[in-house]
Amino acid sequence: MNTKKLKIGLFGFGCVGHGLYEVLQQTPGLDAEIKTIVVKQKNKSRRLAPEWFSYDKSEILNDAEINLVVELIDDPDAAFEIVKQALCNGKAVVSANKKMIAEHFEELLELQKQFQTPFLYEAAVCASIPIIRNLEEYYDNDLLRSIEGIVNGSTNYILSKTASENLSYQQALQQAQELGYAESNPRLDTGGFDAKFKLLLLIAHAFGIVLQPEQIFHQGINKLGELELNYAREKGLKIKLKARAFKNEAGKVCAFVLPEFVSKNDKFYQVDEVYNALQIEGCFADKQFFVGRGAGAYPTASAVLSDISALRYNYRYEYKKRQEDNEMEASENIFLRVLLRHPREASDEVRSKFLDTEELYKNKEQAYTIGIITLAELQSTLTTEDVSAVLMDLPNSAEVSQYSEKFGEIAWLQE
Amino acid sequence: MNTKKLKIGLFGFGCVGHGLYEVLQQTPGLDAEIKTIVVKQKNKSRRLAPEWFSYDKSEILNDAEINLVVELIDDPDAAFEIVKQALCNGKAVVSANKKMIAEHFEELLELQKQFQTPFLYEAAVCASIPIIRNLEEYYDNDLLRSIEGIVNGSTNYILSKTASENLSYQQALQQAQELGYAESNPRLDTGGFDAKFKLLLLIAHAFGIVLQPEQIFHQGINKLGELELNYAREKGLKIKLKARAFKNEAGKVCAFVLPEFVSKNDKFYQVDEVYNALQIEGCFADKQFFVGRGAGAYPTASAVLSDISALRYNYRYEYKKRQEDNEMEASENIFLRVLLRHPREASDEVRSKFLDTEELYKNKEQAYTIGIITLAELQSTLTTEDVSAVLMDLPNSAEVSQYSEKFGEIAWLQE
Repeated sequence: MNTKKLKIGLFGFGCVGHGLYEVLQQTPGLDAEIKTIVVKQKNKSRRLAPEWFSYDKSEILNDAEINLVVELIDDPDAAFEIVKQALCNGKAVVSANKKMIAEHFEELLELQKQFQTPFLYEAAVCASIPIIRNLEEYYDNDLLRSIEGIVNGSTNYILSKTASENLSYQQALQQAQELGYAESNPRLDTGGFDAKFKLLLLIAHAFGIVLQPEQIFHQGINKLGELELNYAREKGLKIKLKARAFKNEAGKVCAFVLPEFVSKNDKFYQVDEVYNALQIEGCFADKQFFVGRGAGAYPTASAVLSDISALRYNYRYEYKKRQEDNEMEASENIFLRVLLRHPREASDEVRSKFLDTEELYKNKEQAYTIGIITLAELQSTLTTEDVSAVLMDLPNSAEVSQYSEKFGEIAWLQE
Repeated sequence: MNTKKLKIGLFGFGCVGHGLYEVLQQTPGLDAEIKTIVVKQKNKSRRLAPEWFSYDKSEILNDAEINLVVELIDDPDAAFEIVKQALCNGKAVVSANKKMIAEHFEELLELQKQFQTPFLYEAAVCASIPIIRNLEEYYDNDLLRSIEGIVNGSTNYILSKTASENLSYQQALQQAQELGYAESNPRLDTGGFDAKFKLLLLIAHAFGIVLQPEQIFHQGINKLGELELNYAREKGLKIKLKARAFKNEAGKVCAFVLPEFVSKNDKFYQVDEVYNALQIEGCFADKQFFVGRGAGAYPTASAVLSDISALRYNYRYEYKKRQEDNEMEASENIFLRVLLRHPREASDEVRSKFLDTEELYKNKEQAYTIGIITLAELQSTLTTEDVSAVLMDLPNSAEVSQYSEKFGEIAWLQE
């Protein structure tokens, strides 16, 4: 097989951009070299000589010699403009920008088709874990049942610290920011948006369904309070922010991002700090578990590098599983067992939304309810700042069928 | 991309063969169908009608309509003849026979090249874990440092039972045999041969080095005694049979199969029963951990299925990393910290082989020594039935440099 010599135009020279530069220096056999680096700020000190840099994106986009654009900038809108133009100009593109990809998935599919140019983005999901490639190539026929995982390193770091060092959420967040594991504006991570964008990409490659970000419910970790953290500590559990997508018995896909309690014998329990982990369940292969660094310059750069390497062989995603009809389950039909923390005085109103309540607790200010609730009802309770949910587990189908019968029997729990 | 319609000739209809048949039935979209099944025994009752079966291998090998041979028989010599003939006849081949592949790797490479026919064998290593494909495609440029793992399900099942149910080795083996997790002649598994064959395949795809089975040292679990099992129980450790290959500081590859003590905070600690796990360490991607079922009809069939699916797109291994010069480290230069169990009276002789001895123990019959030993010396001690080793860890380079100095200072330990 003949390999293609790659001339790279690189957008962005932050942590990952610089990591990629170093990684390319150390893999001379790859036959790929950076020709031009376009950055935004002119007067920033950088670790390469000024002649490497340009501030004009056309110096990459209109350079006929450059056949590969690597986009590693922060701004998703600017990133989309760059990627669009590069694909239009017939250049292959590698990106790590999950927000941009999730928000423009359909357009990006269309552009790839129209201009027959490959667009790869392994680094956008779980950095070093080769999940997109495996979903696309390896699990293309093994009927997939579910994919779930810890897909955000910042929030996992914060949650790990609340567990291992008994830090409060605010203290752990501050520590993560000081160490560079969380942004100064951390909401994209802590609010669960980043996890949702990644889940959207995973769903596209696992089940062939392309969603809009608004179609996936997410709650991050920024509403977690000491009550839930203490509950976990007392019971020997950990809380992990997890993204899940699975097929239910009707064959429809259910998807959401929620903090979850994880017990000691759960594989995810040991996944701490900035590590990410994914579990895939197939009808035949059963459960596959992948763990790796979910963030960091080199792990992310190594995923970018694998995309670059694959482009030498003209690799592209085929989106073989793509299907037009959107087999998503309605949130009214998704049942969850959750711990819901809410103000003491709101108890009745909140509890009326549960199909079954199993445990109640209250102190002078707060209360929590553990029980079965639909995703739709859960969403409606989480609209206020002082209500927060942690998933206990997913009720099995026998349990689900009982709830409608049981509904109405829970008067004893009401005050 | 156009996909190829596949007509399959299947050799063998045991557990995995039947699993593959079922899996294919349930994935009609694959456009691959079994045309003929060749089996050995004529008078065996089978779960398909007799017209599916033939007893003459030429009915597959000389059938021009069959473009894919799936080889799932036990006998490695017969398997090699089938695979060779199929490749010569221009048919793609999928196999799960690690012993056959490990023993004929060079010839199989040559045949693929000569006849330009693809030969895939994902199911040969860790069944459902997609490791060969990932080493071949995804980690083709990320400079790999090491690959290590639990690659044999039978032995992991036996070892799990010695830990979780305090069974003796013999009791656990018997239970495994009763459940079909171990063969009636289990030596291929318990002796560490199977793990070695898999390691040979992993080394070829990880580092591009093709070895003969004799070049890799292996000790299985069949020599483990109650002394080592009790040592593990008392210290809260588990014993796992692990295959390892890693580059040392000189850039040379060290490889061996040995039982190892694994502590609670080790990722492999939780990998029990018939599960397999692999950890890959790359210079940039850092550590990647994969866990999945290492045996069983469906997990193995699902790996076969993924190979079949890839062949629709004319996928083949490119062996891009292949290198002729054999950069293996000599066993004299590989240092291990081991617990060596030996007869009480052999103590002096055994201990003289250690570079450094750290702990001694003896009772009325037996003794053990913990210390640093080269792989070459370890091999020479393990030639008798009553000596058995369990790896404690790999000494770091600072430690290694001390041993030659320390050598001679250990007289106080001698009797």
